[in-house]
Amino acid sequence: MIPRSRFVSILSVFLVSSVSLAAEHSTTLTDTAENIQIDNWSHMIVHDGESCSIRKSTLHGGRQEGVDVIDVNNGRLQFRVVPTRGMGILWVQCGDVRLGWDSPIQEIVHPMHVDLDARGGLGWLHGFNEWMVRCGLEWAGSPGTDTMINNQGDSVSMELSLHGRIANIPATKVVVSIDKGPQPRIRIRGLVEEITFHGPKLEIWTEISTELGSSEFQISDTVTNRSASPQEMQIIYHANYGTPILEKGAKLVAPIDEVYPFNDRAVPNVRDHATYDEPTPGYVETVYCIHPKADPRGDVTILLHNATGDQGVSMKWPINQLPYLTQWKNTIAQQDGYVTGLEPATGFPLNRQAEREGGRVPVLEGGQSRTFTLDFNVLTEEQQVRTVVETISRIQGADMPKFHNNPLITSEAATE
Amino acid sequence: MIPRSRFVSILSVFLVSSVSLAAEHSTTLTDTAENIQIDNWSHMIVHDGESCSIRKSTLHGGRQEGVDVIDVNNGRLQFRVVPTRGMGILWVQCGDVRLGWDSPIQEIVHPMHVDLDARGGLGWLHGFNEWMVRCGLEWAGSPGTDTMINNQGDSVSMELSLHGRIANIPATKVVVSIDKGPQPRIRIRGLVEEITFHGPKLEIWTEISTELGSSEFQISDTVTNRSASPQEMQIIYHANYGTPILEKGAKLVAPIDEVYPFNDRAVPNVRDHATYDEPTPGYVETVYCIHPKADPRGDVTILLHNATGDQGVSMKWPINQLPYLTQWKNTIAQQDGYVTGLEPATGFPLNRQAEREGGRVPVLEGGQSRTFTLDFNVLTEEQQVRTVVETISRIQGADMPKFHNNPLITSEAATE
Amino acid sequence: MIPRSRFVSILSVFLVSSVSLAAEHSTTLTDTAENIQIDNWSHMIVHDGESCSIRKSTLHGGRQEGVDVIDVNNGRLQFRVVPTRGMGILWVQCGDVRLGWDSPIQEIVHPMHVDLDARGGLGWLHGFNEWMVRCGLEWAGSPGTDTMINNQGDSVSMELSLHGRIANIPATKVVVSIDKGPQPRIRIRGLVEEITFHGPKLEIWTEISTELGSSEFQISDTVTNRSASPQEMQIIYHANYGTPILEKGAKLVAPIDEVYPFNDRAVPNVRDHATYDEPTPGYVETVYCIHPKADPRGDVTILLHNATGDQGVSMKWPINQLPYLTQWKNTIAQQDGYVTGLEPATGFPLNRQAEREGGRVPVLEGGQSRTFTLDFNVLTEEQQVRTVVETISRIQGADMPKFHNNPLITSEAATE
Repeated sequence: MIPRSRFVSILSVFLVSSVSLAAEHSTTLTDTAENIQIDNWSHMIVHDGESCSIRKSTLHGGRQEGVDVIDVNNGRLQFRVVPTRGMGILWVQCGDVRLGWDSPIQEIVHPMHVDLDARGGLGWLHGFNEWMVRCGLEWAGSPGTDTMINNQGDSVSMELSLHGRIANIPATKVVVSIDKGPQPRIRIRGLVEEITFHGPKLEIWTEISTELGSSEFQISDTVTNRSASPQEMQIIYHANYGTPILEKGAKLVAPIDEVYPFNDRAVPNVRDHATYDEPTPGYVETVYCIHPKADPRGDVTILLHNATGDQGVSMKWPINQLPYLTQWKNTIAQQDGYVTGLEPATGFPLNRQAEREGGRVPVLEGGQSRTFTLDFNVLTEEQQVRTVVETISRIQGADMPKFHNNPLITSEAATE
Repeated sequence: MIPRSRFVSILSVFLVSSVSLAAEHSTTLTDTAENIQIDNWSHMIVHDGESCSIRKSTLHGGRQEGVDVIDVNNGRLQFRVVPTRGMGILWVQCGDVRLGWDSPIQEIVHPMHVDLDARGGLGWLHGFNEWMVRCGLEWAGSPGTDTMINNQGDSVSMELSLHGRIANIPATKVVVSIDKGPQPRIRIRGLVEEITFHGPKLEIWTEISTELGSSEFQISDTVTNRSASPQEMQIIYHANYGTPILEKGAKLVAPIDEVYPFNDRAVPNVRDHATYDEPTPGYVETVYCIHPKADPRGDVTILLHNATGDQGVSMKWPINQLPYLTQWKNTIAQQDGYVTGLEPATGFPLNRQAEREGGRVPVLEGGQSRTFTLDFNVLTEEQQVRTVVETISRIQGADMPKFHNNPLITSEAATE
Repeated sequence: MIPRSRFVSILSVFLVSSVSLAAEHSTTLTDTAENIQIDNWSHMIVHDGESCSIRKSTLHGGRQEGVDVIDVNNGRLQFRVVPTRGMGILWVQCGDVRLGWDSPIQEIVHPMHVDLDARGGLGWLHGFNEWMVRCGLEWAGSPGTDTMINNQGDSVSMELSLHGRIANIPATKVVVSIDKGPQPRIRIRGLVEEITFHGPKLEIWTEISTELGSSEFQISDTVTNRSASPQEMQIIYHANYGTPILEKGAKLVAPIDEVYPFNDRAVPNVRDHATYDEPTPGYVETVYCIHPKADPRGDVTILLHNATGDQGVSMKWPINQLPYLTQWKNTIAQQDGYVTGLEPATGFPLNRQAEREGGRVPVLEGGQSRTFTLDFNVLTEEQQVRTVVETISRIQGADMPKFHNNPLITSEAATE
């Protein structure tokens, strides 16, 4: 029960080790059960003549004080993971292509400075600047009242805040490892617990991994209900793109069954949802709710590419894991956060009450787990983009998307 | 006005001192007025051949980052105090007997991660895992609206959150000491301030103390109203027990005048309130509000023991200090938090408005103090348990408890 | 993108440098963009035989853990700035005269322990103990609902908390410098960002500066709207005075056009608003809303002096920058916070909805800035006080203030 001291950690500071690639390497950077917290650590590897690295550091000053970040370089691809903010991924860079955006919030805000209930349940936005932020797990969508019948037959109400709690919970355990073998793979894994007494007992083991020298990477998460009783859950993989991919003429390419405008504002342009405008001061966001089509293997593949089609990103996931896709267009002025969100999810981002009524809120039985796996490829050449466009075109086939004119949400507040 | 540096503290790190037991030892671990904060410190004593210790450390990682803990070993009894969480006591261990429980919340959660108003005023539960957590001081019970007439004659309303603020306020001053004399006593004292402008100016000096080599310990707290004007106050000593004492057939033994079911749900089993069931997935808590009986000296003694009656804990306190006792039965599945709370208090855990109407909210005049003293004994043998059972039986005498069928709370929300 | 380590900072700890006064000195103590955070630092200067200093330190323990403070001594005047609390100024001392007060909150509370929405939007009071605290920037006044028509023509409501967010946001950048030249001037500058996605993008560059050996100092702040779209803003310079200046018979001297009682409670004593009572247990605050008069240059000068008129403070600012002045009288018992606030502002401290209806909420166009400059002089001699009284008397001239009997606020909640 006696905790180990932080001084153990300080001994590890700037410990730079070079391991043989034949051997698996694994380091626990955080483990609250053991009182392990390593503030500064790095690991270097040379692979095919490229220097690769994993580096953990802790930021200081302002609202960043105490924020842990992990910077990974696989020799071709760089990305930054933020354990303090629920293992979110701040940005990914591959050559000239960045996955990410320029949020007006420039600091990586520690959750201590985020009051989720502030500004009518929009406090989550006070720290929103990630490329990939997970929304969930007890709820994931719009703020507002959720009234339901509990298991004692009583009608109970709860005020939900925007996009849930998981992105503002620091990881309980963080482990970095490199697989052995001819194609070594870096894995950054983190356990985030959204657990309360008389409430959800949901945990998520997140993983982002990439092979050395690759432009591809994978997110693979497992959500488990640790309770003995059933528990609703929601997750949205809120992936956000600004420049350089997003620009006037940028395009979403996706195999689509149906598209619903999220609200009245999105109705007029539902048929043009796939193309993007330049930064427009005062633009008010529009949101489209998409039922995507899968390939014969059951996977959905989508693509966002720039105007000339020589930069882009593809995202692929099993449709049975994440059956819904939300496209959020926020082509506002650059300094106000010019961005689009492409959001594979267990549902759409309406308030949980509407999602439940729509049959889009999964329930995990006691002890049950669900895994969510998404593959990403950063496309830095025109030929790569064209290949993915053709793949998606084949999946779409002759059946055109069905465009709905009735918004999914009408009288409800529709805040992204 | 120039603050002393933390470097003073670092010089004290792992300073292990052995003092003669004839001399009193006292160390200030935290004093914000002097900018004293010692992160790591320990003190060893050998007494009757047993090694005793007091150790202060600071936890790191996840939601534990920056949480101070004090671990005490009196040679027979071990316990952990958490200054960062209002001087709560995480657990007490004596031989095979643990006072405490297995909350689904495993980390010792820093108050920065607890938003009391979250989940409809249930945010307190996000950090709830102590054996002993004090509820209070401005309010201590159920969440919800409290409407009252203020001293200007206006009707004012305030939304109260569950169990008040004091458990999520870090201590302003922490002092550890060992009394001199033939029976040295370790004292861990902490000042916690629940003070706001245009609001309560309540402070509590908490103390937990134990003699070297003893299975007994004492909590003795003094609450003071620092204002010049009168101030309501409430305190609940929320002591929580899981395994090994709590199990199917475990029993509460208490001298009782009257028992009220807290709400409708508790009505059917009011006569069986004293015995416990095994962990039951989906069990919904039941709560009983008890008017205990005192012995001729004015003390209430209660006992919780396991099924076979060879492990238990006794709690004793002056009835004029804490006239009410709440029994909270939450015999849910082990992983959801199988626990019972035995809660001596200035009132019952209804919303403060109902407590005020019931005449159970004390008022402290300007400058006035009240002291609350509770004695605990960890019982590790059958004979010890039997002796306490007999003592309580004598206090109960021939008058049986009066069981009420009408719940204390009816239409109100009844959340523990 | 790789952050610099804190170890860079530790190398600077207690670095004491003496520079030639001919050369400008500038040090960045915090810059989150560069991951710079220097926890302990000091700088000494000898000027005219007086030793002057700037010292940065970080406080530890309780609710002060991690709070940065900067202590300045110009050889005659000392003051403490708190970057962690929005660059607020805790106190100013000049000889026997202190600017500041004795709040019942004695710790310098880290924003992580302040939930602005607590206690019905009064959570701001949990950390309120500064001499000078800025209220704003999105809103600055009383808590409560603000309903407005947004730029899409929808009626939207927001719950505002007392006095806004800026005082509980840590500075993103902190720079200290000393101008070169014959009269060296110390400048403490800090950037505080009140920026959120789908919300305000307001930044404030604060500055407090003073010449070596002077009893005068200046606050000069620039607020900028970083958005491309227009944004409302409010700022109140909430300057708070207790002993020794505030006492029975202390007096506010100000050139006044009109005075409104804030609410019904303030009506009876509106003509006596300028004089103060002794500490009075249970006193309920009264507030007066003043339209001040400017001198021919456009500056307002006001004075608070003690009963005998040998200690005081003068405040001067351009009326076109801050056209309104609020006087807050809270002559309650000393231990409850005997204090008066003198508050030059862009408006009065009503809820923003009422301020908007009163035409007192400025709007900044996209990219637009506004500067606010206030000059202070600490008066330690009777002659100094008399001179300022005479100056103000000349500005007042023959036109007496107009006292209104109708409160500015009637049915609304009127909480300071």
